[in-house]
Amino acid sequence: LLPERQFIERIRRLAGKGGRGRVIRGIGDDCAILQVPQGRQLLATTDLCVENVHFRRKWHPARSAGHRCLARGLSDIAAMGGDPLACFLSLGVSQELPQGWVDEFLRGFLDLARRYRVPLAGGDTSAAQQITADILLLGTIPSNPAVLRSGARPGEQIFVTGKLGGSAAVLKRLYAGEKVGSGAARNHFYPEPRLEIGRQLRQAKLATAMIDLSDGLSVDLAHVCRESRVSALIEASAIPVASSATLDLGLHGGEDCELMFTARPGAKMPGRIAGVPITLIGKIESRSSGRFPVQIRDKQGHIKTLEARGWQHFGKNITSR
Amino acid sequence: LLPERQFIERIRRLAGKGGRGRVIRGIGDDCAILQVPQGRQLLATTDLCVENVHFRRKWHPARSAGHRCLARGLSDIAAMGGDPLACFLSLGVSQELPQGWVDEFLRGFLDLARRYRVPLAGGDTSAAQQITADILLLGTIPSNPAVLRSGARPGEQIFVTGKLGGSAAVLKRLYAGEKVGSGAARNHFYPEPRLEIGRQLRQAKLATAMIDLSDGLSVDLAHVCRESRVSALIEASAIPVASSATLDLGLHGGEDCELMFTARPGAKMPGRIAGVPITLIGKIESRSSGRFPVQIRDKQGHIKTLEARGWQHFGKNITSR
Repeated sequence: LLPERQFIERIRRLAGKGGRGRVIRGIGDDCAILQVPQGRQLLATTDLCVENVHFRRKWHPARSAGHRCLARGLSDIAAMGGDPLACFLSLGVSQELPQGWVDEFLRGFLDLARRYRVPLAGGDTSAAQQITADILLLGTIPSNPAVLRSGARPGEQIFVTGKLGGSAAVLKRLYAGEKVGSGAARNHFYPEPRLEIGRQLRQAKLATAMIDLSDGLSVDLAHVCRESRVSALIEASAIPVASSATLDLGLHGGEDCELMFTARPGAKMPGRIAGVPITLIGKIESRSSGRFPVQIRDKQGHIKTLEARGWQHFGKNITSR
Repeated sequence: LLPERQFIERIRRLAGKGGRGRVIRGIGDDCAILQVPQGRQLLATTDLCVENVHFRRKWHPARSAGHRCLARGLSDIAAMGGDPLACFLSLGVSQELPQGWVDEFLRGFLDLARRYRVPLAGGDTSAAQQITADILLLGTIPSNPAVLRSGARPGEQIFVTGKLGGSAAVLKRLYAGEKVGSGAARNHFYPEPRLEIGRQLRQAKLATAMIDLSDGLSVDLAHVCRESRVSALIEASAIPVASSATLDLGLHGGEDCELMFTARPGAKMPGRIAGVPITLIGKIESRSSGRFPVQIRDKQGHIKTLEARGWQHFGKNITSR
């Protein structure tokens, strides 16, 4: 690994210039200075990615790890219907890590950043035993309204973007010891944040609540129910399961970068947005105290509780689950 | 350790509400939503703190570790002359870590946050072998001018706030196996970010360049010289060394949360700002190619190169240095 100062200089050079007019001062001072366009509010989110928890060096090419770290943050901006403004990277690595790995990680990160015109405006570095990458994403939205998790109301419909479970299906194969090439399984190795969909849903005022399905539908729908103080009933037969996945992976597998959102009963929902299919999977109901907030009707018509079995970081991780 | 959802709920509860009017939506959605006051620019900085690199559990009470993590970020805001807006905490911990440690860490963090009215508006959590805390600090400044590292010009004077080397002196005692109580050595365990000084220097347009001395004077003065394309000559006899420290620690020891800044030759510099002494330590000279940018005149009048021997994260850390 390069000594710290050269290391930071290298990141600065790879990051290049960008965000003209928004980034007044990028890497190289105590703080970055940014201009938030007038009349817009600021969005901020952090995503902490740790080796062997969020990716494995044996499974994920460094370039995919870099891409996935940034995609998580961009997906959070998408779920608010926002536009990215700038990103920051805090990177902890051990001295034994080959510089080539870090360079490829940065390439995956910066390729995605450039595609969405998100300048890397700063960050920090430290020694660390596990590779640790904390991504800070800043974005903006018009002052009103952002699409929150808390906006769902009884009677509304629940939609998801794209197909679910594809990323988890790849993870399952990796666990089983299979070699999975990153070219053939882009939804796992290079997932696409749904920024354009989020933006269009907000602009058209089609979504009343929205969340990105980073932890899996069962967990993230429960989040929306809790924040909105409602419950939900979804239809097993309606879940758009990826062709490589099972219903179980579609319900509980996260990290597809897809969005879930709710809409008023009469809303005219297009079948696709930005080329991605939009699928109705259920409806919001009023909160029933004591009952778990998410129910699912199986293919035989039986209604059951949908346990939140998606991603939980403590107690299990990518190695042990 | 509590399961992740309860863990986040606990942070949310401890953080409480704050930043009324600035934090439109805090913890609990995909992103926080913030309001940047009109006519102001945004500051952003991240500081990655890793166990055994930036603190040791054996040496630092959890409360001190939490305080120190946030103080590093606040000190970066101070060095721009800015006002803090909100902070974010990405926290990686292992399941074996006692919840009590995390609670005390959060207490140290949040006590300091409350004192400077900086709401905790979001973050992330993950499993991690080493305790890892990445702090994101957002701040604001009037649209013009921030005090950058690049503003120093030949002929200007160099000042520092407070006393230097006190934090490093404590660290040295800890290395030597001494027990050092956190009450008796607050400059190391609970350093005070110089927000009020930074703000006053910016408002009075007294500082032409500024940096916080997190890595030590020898390293941070070299940063300013590089960004400003100048060199510097400082006087060994003028360095305000803490009573517990040596000149060497004053020159190379970081983490005092003090500021270094430059000012025009005729500037009327107060002897104290916000109760803290301001000391003239040298002057900025034009850049001489090939020569190391920082020179020091020792007490015998000999001018020597001042090597940047302060904090470097890779290759050594709090354990090995």
